[in-house]
Amino acid sequence: MSPHIFINENRFKQNFDKASSFGATENGGLNRPTFSEQHTQVRSWFKDLVKASDLVFRIDEAGNHSGILKADNASAKTFIIGSHLDSVPYGGRFDGNLGVMIALEVAETIRDHKIKLPFHLEVMDFTDEEGTHLPLWGSRALCGKLSEDEVFHKFQGTDTLDKVGLNAGNMKKAERTADSLAGYMEVHIEQGVRLEESETDVGIVNSITGIGRYYISFKGSANHAGTTPMDKRKDASLGAAAFILECNELVVNEFPGCVCNTGNVEFSPTAFNVIPQVCKVWLEYRAPDVDLMQEMERKFIESAKSIANRHGLEVGLKKVEMVRPVPMANDIQQAFARACSTLGYSHKTLTSGAGHDAQSFEGLCSSGMVFIPSVGGYSHSDREFTKWEDCIKGANTLLHAVLEMKANYS
Amino acid sequence: MSPHIFINENRFKQNFDKASSFGATENGGLNRPTFSEQHTQVRSWFKDLVKASDLVFRIDEAGNHSGILKADNASAKTFIIGSHLDSVPYGGRFDGNLGVMIALEVAETIRDHKIKLPFHLEVMDFTDEEGTHLPLWGSRALCGKLSEDEVFHKFQGTDTLDKVGLNAGNMKKAERTADSLAGYMEVHIEQGVRLEESETDVGIVNSITGIGRYYISFKGSANHAGTTPMDKRKDASLGAAAFILECNELVVNEFPGCVCNTGNVEFSPTAFNVIPQVCKVWLEYRAPDVDLMQEMERKFIESAKSIANRHGLEVGLKKVEMVRPVPMANDIQQAFARACSTLGYSHKTLTSGAGHDAQSFEGLCSSGMVFIPSVGGYSHSDREFTKWEDCIKGANTLLHAVLEMKANYS
Repeated sequence: MSPHIFINENRFKQNFDKASSFGATENGGLNRPTFSEQHTQVRSWFKDLVKASDLVFRIDEAGNHSGILKADNASAKTFIIGSHLDSVPYGGRFDGNLGVMIALEVAETIRDHKIKLPFHLEVMDFTDEEGTHLPLWGSRALCGKLSEDEVFHKFQGTDTLDKVGLNAGNMKKAERTADSLAGYMEVHIEQGVRLEESETDVGIVNSITGIGRYYISFKGSANHAGTTPMDKRKDASLGAAAFILECNELVVNEFPGCVCNTGNVEFSPTAFNVIPQVCKVWLEYRAPDVDLMQEMERKFIESAKSIANRHGLEVGLKKVEMVRPVPMANDIQQAFARACSTLGYSHKTLTSGAGHDAQSFEGLCSSGMVFIPSVGGYSHSDREFTKWEDCIKGANTLLHAVLEMKANYS
Repeated sequence: MSPHIFINENRFKQNFDKASSFGATENGGLNRPTFSEQHTQVRSWFKDLVKASDLVFRIDEAGNHSGILKADNASAKTFIIGSHLDSVPYGGRFDGNLGVMIALEVAETIRDHKIKLPFHLEVMDFTDEEGTHLPLWGSRALCGKLSEDEVFHKFQGTDTLDKVGLNAGNMKKAERTADSLAGYMEVHIEQGVRLEESETDVGIVNSITGIGRYYISFKGSANHAGTTPMDKRKDASLGAAAFILECNELVVNEFPGCVCNTGNVEFSPTAFNVIPQVCKVWLEYRAPDVDLMQEMERKFIESAKSIANRHGLEVGLKKVEMVRPVPMANDIQQAFARACSTLGYSHKTLTSGAGHDAQSFEGLCSSGMVFIPSVGGYSHSDREFTKWEDCIKGANTLLHAVLEMKANYS
């Protein structure tokens, strides 16, 4: 336990502000899609910064940039800390950008204090977390979870890779083995209001949400909306409407902490005077564990069938996507919790409703992350904001969590 | 009263079958949009048929084709009977086509029996009832209800009028004066199942429905559907869904005989993982009288506002269209009812849920129409069908209704 060590706030601020200047928008946001000019510039600046910090700079075949604080034991495993320097188009300056600067500051602080680690500590800027080209590109490549098909199909006929000196044929070489990895930790903004509203300093992520996506279609009969009496109709819009309300109630009442969304309904035909024949609801739902995901799926389908039956409609189910939830490692969660205790920070357990690089490490090594508060919960927008004092708390939490991992390393 | 006069079934059948052959589709439908080749052919055939029937052929500046059975008194008013020979694309062979053939058969029967009428009887084929170019084009032109703007704007830069020898600048000349018109009657298929289900021969139309059309928009906040908890959302889809169900219940419970339809909902944005910010519901409603129309409008708006309030949304109201209901003339309804009694046909009073040429005559002369049963209620489709015995009943009803108008003519 090292309660008297803290990160260097001035250096951290200077680096964060400088990092945020590449692709800065006039309203305080960041426009830095992967391999845009602004992204290439911040990568180049980061590389120089790493080199100037006495960390060992590394770039792999997926374009991941990192700086390594080497352990004395050359054959030690590697513990990765980091996030991503790319942004969505016209996003905010905290999402990813902050996490990389925190990781760098943590490594520099450990170096400053000449603390010996039993693992190499690698500060990582993952390529394209946001998926301008491929979602979680860098972390999935590093964890061997990018298919060759995906890579070749995606970049065929484009000069995206050439432009930055990468090659689809080489990308597999970015893969690390499980026995080379000691773990992964990340600090990220919450992108929600749970911490802000509960006035909690740190959210320890217990799971990265699973995501289910379905097209749920209700089919009735198109007919003249002027001449067909109300009681002779098979109106697909009634099925879709009832389903939207029922999904919402179901999640609120039976699945606390989970979410669903009906992001669109496609009508066919689309006319004032024709009774809708088909309404295709776009349903998404998210839950922190597999059992809940399955239970939600079952209930949604049951509800769709019962509604269709009630309104004399047929129901069509098409699974569009199913991303399994990824639980975060217990040892990492415990290290974060102890770090918060050491520092006197309040903390609570949260599920991440969005995907993050941390999930790519599933099955390879312990992986986890913490959230710090997002003012107003704004995300992927120039309204995204986190108070500087919370950024500092995030950095100190990661610092002490790494020290916890050191203390408990076996 | 002339209970022993009936139309000539063989001639009627022969003419109807021939008329139905122009633009016939392989499944028994009709593809005869206004001024298509098939429509031009049936018009030409109709003209020859009129001439061969000793009726006086007439074409006006709106392209309305007619055959006139002249009264002895040259300065008599004109009683118009008819319908339209155009169809929607790939429609049925009874909608309009049957009404024109019935009107011709009625005039020929009266001529055969040498019955003297106190009015000229004009068998009318109205131009473009279905609105391939302008809805109710011919009847509105004849009744002076087509604006010059509408005509010039619609046809500017097209050769639609040239092709058939018409001229936008002349169209106003098709207008008739109120003192030249004795009345209008039409036989049409119901395009619904009320007659079929109640096993009634004839439906006497008391009103042509009013039509209200609105865009009702619910506005909330777009937000990340993964990271925004259910209780922190302003989800526009919940407003739209509740509104769809409430409109339906409202009409079923409080406005019997009226209808509404939610023919589309436009979502913005449209993504699985973004909470819908705006949902724009396309609402249409129809009622047989102005008071009901206003009462429905008031209740729909009240409902939208209350729902928006309940879900923390804003509501936007945009009136798209408002067509006033047109009551059918009492003397015409009574003439139809007496005709049915004379013939021993069962009859009931119905509101027309769709628009028809009969509504154009409002304010000019008495106007009315009867419906005959549509098997299954199919309309604007090759599934449209009416039993031949019902077509004959429709023709005899019109015949005797004209004779009723003669008997009661003052």
